[in-house]
Amino acid sequence: MVPRYSRPQMTAIWSPTNRYRIWFEIEALACEAMAQQGIIPESAAKNIREKGDAAMAAFSEQDIARIDEIEAETRHDVIAFLTWLAEKIGPDSRFVHLGMTSSDVLDTCFSVQLKQASDLLLEDLDQVLSALKKRAYEHKNTVTIGRSHAIHAEPTSFGLKLAGHYAEFARDRERLLQARKEIAVGAISGAVGTYAHIDPAIEEYVANKLGLVAESVSTQVIPRDRHAAFFCTLAVIASGIERLAVEVRHLQRSEVREAEEFFHKGQKGSSAMPHKRNPVLSENLTGLARLVRSHAIPALENVALWHERDISHSSVERNIGPDATIGLDFALMRLAGMMEKLVVYPDQMIANLESLGGVVHSGEVLLTLARAGISREDAYKIVQRNAMATWTKLGHPDFKTFRENLEADPEVSGRVSADVLDKAFDASQHLAQVDRIFDRVFN
Amino acid sequence: MVPRYSRPQMTAIWSPTNRYRIWFEIEALACEAMAQQGIIPESAAKNIREKGDAAMAAFSEQDIARIDEIEAETRHDVIAFLTWLAEKIGPDSRFVHLGMTSSDVLDTCFSVQLKQASDLLLEDLDQVLSALKKRAYEHKNTVTIGRSHAIHAEPTSFGLKLAGHYAEFARDRERLLQARKEIAVGAISGAVGTYAHIDPAIEEYVANKLGLVAESVSTQVIPRDRHAAFFCTLAVIASGIERLAVEVRHLQRSEVREAEEFFHKGQKGSSAMPHKRNPVLSENLTGLARLVRSHAIPALENVALWHERDISHSSVERNIGPDATIGLDFALMRLAGMMEKLVVYPDQMIANLESLGGVVHSGEVLLTLARAGISREDAYKIVQRNAMATWTKLGHPDFKTFRENLEADPEVSGRVSADVLDKAFDASQHLAQVDRIFDRVFN
Amino acid sequence: MVPRYSRPQMTAIWSPTNRYRIWFEIEALACEAMAQQGIIPESAAKNIREKGDAAMAAFSEQDIARIDEIEAETRHDVIAFLTWLAEKIGPDSRFVHLGMTSSDVLDTCFSVQLKQASDLLLEDLDQVLSALKKRAYEHKNTVTIGRSHAIHAEPTSFGLKLAGHYAEFARDRERLLQARKEIAVGAISGAVGTYAHIDPAIEEYVANKLGLVAESVSTQVIPRDRHAAFFCTLAVIASGIERLAVEVRHLQRSEVREAEEFFHKGQKGSSAMPHKRNPVLSENLTGLARLVRSHAIPALENVALWHERDISHSSVERNIGPDATIGLDFALMRLAGMMEKLVVYPDQMIANLESLGGVVHSGEVLLTLARAGISREDAYKIVQRNAMATWTKLGHPDFKTFRENLEADPEVSGRVSADVLDKAFDASQHLAQVDRIFDRVFN
Amino acid sequence: MVPRYSRPQMTAIWSPTNRYRIWFEIEALACEAMAQQGIIPESAAKNIREKGDAAMAAFSEQDIARIDEIEAETRHDVIAFLTWLAEKIGPDSRFVHLGMTSSDVLDTCFSVQLKQASDLLLEDLDQVLSALKKRAYEHKNTVTIGRSHAIHAEPTSFGLKLAGHYAEFARDRERLLQARKEIAVGAISGAVGTYAHIDPAIEEYVANKLGLVAESVSTQVIPRDRHAAFFCTLAVIASGIERLAVEVRHLQRSEVREAEEFFHKGQKGSSAMPHKRNPVLSENLTGLARLVRSHAIPALENVALWHERDISHSSVERNIGPDATIGLDFALMRLAGMMEKLVVYPDQMIANLESLGGVVHSGEVLLTLARAGISREDAYKIVQRNAMATWTKLGHPDFKTFRENLEADPEVSGRVSADVLDKAFDASQHLAQVDRIFDRVFN
Repeated sequence: MVPRYSRPQMTAIWSPTNRYRIWFEIEALACEAMAQQGIIPESAAKNIREKGDAAMAAFSEQDIARIDEIEAETRHDVIAFLTWLAEKIGPDSRFVHLGMTSSDVLDTCFSVQLKQASDLLLEDLDQVLSALKKRAYEHKNTVTIGRSHAIHAEPTSFGLKLAGHYAEFARDRERLLQARKEIAVGAISGAVGTYAHIDPAIEEYVANKLGLVAESVSTQVIPRDRHAAFFCTLAVIASGIERLAVEVRHLQRSEVREAEEFFHKGQKGSSAMPHKRNPVLSENLTGLARLVRSHAIPALENVALWHERDISHSSVERNIGPDATIGLDFALMRLAGMMEKLVVYPDQMIANLESLGGVVHSGEVLLTLARAGISREDAYKIVQRNAMATWTKLGHPDFKTFRENLEADPEVSGRVSADVLDKAFDASQHLAQVDRIFDRVFN
Repeated sequence: MVPRYSRPQMTAIWSPTNRYRIWFEIEALACEAMAQQGIIPESAAKNIREKGDAAMAAFSEQDIARIDEIEAETRHDVIAFLTWLAEKIGPDSRFVHLGMTSSDVLDTCFSVQLKQASDLLLEDLDQVLSALKKRAYEHKNTVTIGRSHAIHAEPTSFGLKLAGHYAEFARDRERLLQARKEIAVGAISGAVGTYAHIDPAIEEYVANKLGLVAESVSTQVIPRDRHAAFFCTLAVIASGIERLAVEVRHLQRSEVREAEEFFHKGQKGSSAMPHKRNPVLSENLTGLARLVRSHAIPALENVALWHERDISHSSVERNIGPDATIGLDFALMRLAGMMEKLVVYPDQMIANLESLGGVVHSGEVLLTLARAGISREDAYKIVQRNAMATWTKLGHPDFKTFRENLEADPEVSGRVSADVLDKAFDASQHLAQVDRIFDRVFN
Repeated sequence: MVPRYSRPQMTAIWSPTNRYRIWFEIEALACEAMAQQGIIPESAAKNIREKGDAAMAAFSEQDIARIDEIEAETRHDVIAFLTWLAEKIGPDSRFVHLGMTSSDVLDTCFSVQLKQASDLLLEDLDQVLSALKKRAYEHKNTVTIGRSHAIHAEPTSFGLKLAGHYAEFARDRERLLQARKEIAVGAISGAVGTYAHIDPAIEEYVANKLGLVAESVSTQVIPRDRHAAFFCTLAVIASGIERLAVEVRHLQRSEVREAEEFFHKGQKGSSAMPHKRNPVLSENLTGLARLVRSHAIPALENVALWHERDISHSSVERNIGPDATIGLDFALMRLAGMMEKLVVYPDQMIANLESLGGVVHSGEVLLTLARAGISREDAYKIVQRNAMATWTKLGHPDFKTFRENLEADPEVSGRVSADVLDKAFDASQHLAQVDRIFDRVFN
Repeated sequence: MVPRYSRPQMTAIWSPTNRYRIWFEIEALACEAMAQQGIIPESAAKNIREKGDAAMAAFSEQDIARIDEIEAETRHDVIAFLTWLAEKIGPDSRFVHLGMTSSDVLDTCFSVQLKQASDLLLEDLDQVLSALKKRAYEHKNTVTIGRSHAIHAEPTSFGLKLAGHYAEFARDRERLLQARKEIAVGAISGAVGTYAHIDPAIEEYVANKLGLVAESVSTQVIPRDRHAAFFCTLAVIASGIERLAVEVRHLQRSEVREAEEFFHKGQKGSSAMPHKRNPVLSENLTGLARLVRSHAIPALENVALWHERDISHSSVERNIGPDATIGLDFALMRLAGMMEKLVVYPDQMIANLESLGGVVHSGEVLLTLARAGISREDAYKIVQRNAMATWTKLGHPDFKTFRENLEADPEVSGRVSADVLDKAFDASQHLAQVDRIFDRVFN
């Protein structure tokens, strides 16, 4: 992910320093467990922990350079790290990584990183949820037109729109918790997962200390269906971001103008057209959603590794691990801020709602005629006829509102009183259940 | 999905007949609920149920043709169905669909179909799990070589391989249960989800009767993040099928021959080469996995519908609804049968394991040398040197086994006794933890 | 592809009957070539052709059933067909398929089908191009607002919008011609592509007769990079359809109403809201685009077949071959019809253009001020200030147009005369180059 | 793309410095053209060119920091750059960017970068082609077994395998040339592509100087179907890399060992198993192919921008522009080196070919029996029977070769002489057409 769309908190999780720290932690914990089992001397485990902790505390670019240098020869990253670690620890280093294989370190580390990333994403989601809840309650009774097919349908409230997005992000939060559980597993099971050279108790100890669960069957690697499920979940969340972003883009379009992204002092919308204020944040979120979504595909292709494992997943994960989590973290925080500051225009919402001459009440009129004993088919024809007469004359000199047209229609006026029609045209009925829905969503 | 890869049980779920039956059920249940609430006459609800049940029981191709005929004019499928239903029910039909919108019917029906499909897929997964468990126990102690990078690594058991796949499909089962829950929601909330013309209690009643939960906020439609999560789950399961299929394809390749798909009497592998027995089932599963996986993308793109909904998701779902579930159902049942009947060659497994002159024990030898006090780095060089000497002479007249090379190496023979080396070359140590792992997986 | 989105012309290409006809044609042509080379008797080739032609002419459901019956035993589709053919031809059938392998028939047939599909798609594209050209010229000078970020930018013409889409579909036509060339290859090269049992001249003859080119290196199969490129091209075309569909959906939204899909007499937009006229065709096209696009992924995954080939591509192609071409054919024809009949509202276009008080001329005003000697930075500030003053007062009692605000601004009025401002506010300048662009696109 | 998989040549194309250089070049060229047309003073154009060239020559991190600082306020990258440029140029800067819009600069720059990237990728492809051609000729007559379904089929030559991959990469080269042409377009057409404030001749001049063609209809932006086609082409090439990588992985597997990636002195295959030499390069290429392929999806989703453009494509392209080209560049160069140095084991190829007791000649035996007058069906049964008898006894004490079994079969021995059988078992016939195929591929 390019720096433009990266926040330092998430980027740090994917830094070499964090990775090496976790690698060391895994090795040090494994040594502790082995010492407890009497496999290696207590003194060695203690020495490894102390010298290693000191080395990691002082870890700098120079250490990274030294590890890179060793890797240039061995062409193996874990061996390079262990060699560097041995330089720091001395002879006791021979007790490090005993009976383990590189994937024990790499995969368990990746799990820790994805868990750390999940925790940050959960915080992000909470920010989004908090912003949405606040704005939803603020606009619980802000009447606006509901649209299906981008055509005016019936009135709703702007708060209800936001409540729907809140409900989706609340589901996303559940999904992310589930996805976090999927990947919060560690494995220290040796070359092909048989624990031939290392007792399962070591794995148990390390996993517990890291807040992970031991994988039931690892085949050198933690099976990649877990990661596929994880990245698919990020893709689902990204799609939810896109849904809300697309809503804002629509609301800000020049002909709608019901809401607008906050426009900063000094901001310029266009180099050529000074009048422009564009929904660039939500457009940006739309693009970021495409990116995060695209990572699901290679994650799914990573599942079918050959036999006990091949390494084809590695180059994929070195990229999509950071890219998907950094991209989603950035997008969620941008979304939270955008929704916090979204400028809402209730007057314009009313103006738009009324701009079609009242045809948006056609559904209730249909029911009213049906209640008056007209068959569904006939009622439909009557209502459609009068609605179209209204619609097609919008802006014309001989324009009549839907209500006027209905009252002039003998099939209507003969059967339905003005009082009853009044009720059919009352927008407030559409908000009658909003409290009940809010109750379902927020309580 | 082409008929070649379709089973009638799953295809039936997606038939017009099943769809219309569910549509009627939704309408009839809604009428019952409205009658209970006194919104429509009890007698009407009863009449609708009775005449409708009769019409659905007698439902035939002629009815489908009649509905199609009406749709050709109205260009609206639900209205066409309701018109047909009115022809069957008579005047009381004016109480049908009261205050509802098409999506109430369409989306709730789609949920029912996906739930029915999930139930079938869960049964399929049980078949796969059952086959894998049986074969895993059968081969719990069948020694075979574990491979990383498709290179011999260390021994494992064939049963343990299968246990790993069992564990993955068990996770898939959990995921599918979760996915089923995601889509087991119904909505009868009207034009833009405000319940303006219909009480939420109607929705509650209908959903309960259908085994669904009422959607917390529907915006005419059930939000599509649910469906995206569902199809992503199918994609994850498909990828697990691919992983096992690829394993079988590898095991059957001419140079490996450790297992083989059952070859039927009369079967022909190739029109040109009568000697061929090809792993066509697992290759087929590989392709089907690609298909099911591909459906995740349009499902994710479906999430960002415009405002309260647009209809762009519909053409996608009319295809991937059947395609993904039929394809996965077929694949799972094919996989179950394939694994049931898989022909396993334990002797060939041993032969392959031994074919590299014993270098597969290099890991344990490395640990043995380390235990004998040699530094990790030196031990690695000694072992690598002797392993490569073995490997590169495979098939040569002056070939020596890894054991022979080690014994001839003064750096080894001076420090490690033959007894200790014996232990390092004992394959049984690799199976020592198999019972423990099986216990984790199957109990 | 479900029947709802299938046209019989394209569906016929993928029917069993068409497939078997092509299979027979390949076999018969190969026999002719072999007879010419003296490999088989002339009389046999003649007999095979005659009896085979007769059998194919009389080909019925019964024949398909018979072939299916044989395949149920042999589990091999080509062998089943050849056995059925032998039943029709008699003893000379032993000269059929001589030295060939199934893929020779299957892959060459698939190429013929994709070529036939391409020809139909090219015709479809021509229909789309024709409709777009007609409507583009019709609206060459229909002034409308151009929008970036869905915010009013500067005036353009509706015809120019359509010309842009025409140019894209013209590029698509070129791409499809190229894609057609990619897959218009045949191969009759035997078991692993060595021509061990068949002379390359046979392949040459058959390919030529079928309008194909012989593959340079086939490895039993025609390499799948060709097909991947083909399906990617369909995905690009589908995305172009989506772009135009999204444009129409925007233009029809209630607040814009600049264009509308033709609404048929008797059509019903919504079961609940009789006033609705929804852009259901363009929404449908949006969904179909997602589907066709999704087929690119498995087509790309099909490339890396194992060694000289595996059969994993087959289940993919049996589905996406028909699905992608049928879906795209339907979408293109729907698009052509939709654009033919699109109802355009030029008055509403003008009304929308003018609805923001003239700020859409901010770009030209900016240049005007710069020409008057004001620095770019200062000019930008002046224009932005006045445009925002206009914009934010839209609909307010103290609203002033952009022109009025500018004239009241001493920094403007002191430097720029009314005449010069007139020119800046003249919309016709934006259409000055339309002829020139049309010339580039259509001539 | 992480640095691990990045080459400096390609990374440089995507550096801020290169981007700003191209931006300046576009602006300077536009000024030159405007000066030639008398729109701006010659002296201004000369001054802009000279001062700008000097500024770009001295361009440093400090300049980037300054531009970033301005962008932090304006939130617009092109305006930030122009402001920085104005600081360098002085008053004449008011003639820069006259009548242009940001996208004129951004899109034309992106085209230049993609063209530069294409040129590098073409060189990479040439390296791959060169390596493949060299190794193909080296192994033109190296007999090896051809495999379909990973099952031994018939002999072929290793050179012919490589020739097939060469042919695919040669097609890829053509495709990339085509894709380069797709994106080698420039646009300087103003706010919505009408050339309202700028003459098309300016665009023509700038495009020509940059080696681009002027876009026929740009709508502020260059239409994204071009970029979609470009990234799809990269995806097709990546899939071809995967096909060859998978071949090498198969050839190196322990049971096959027909070829091996070069193993460097000092390299370590596994931290736990010193005997390991893994095909890590080709596995890495498999993963990189997945990544590059995944970029096609968001590129396709970028096509349907709203109206004259939205900016959702931007975040996608800022990532996939570099990622896809850097990843593919790295992969191609890695592939070229890997194939250059691939260690090939012809003896092992022969050993594998012969390991199935001669059944790989079943196809020719089938034809031989047919030529001897046995019907195809009977011949098939005879050959299958004897081949299976051979196959199933592999490694058994009573094993007989396919030849021995055939000779013991009265239905064969009575009809076919030993001489004729000799011919059927002659592997050299499979190489008879290799020269002819090489001629097609390489000349």
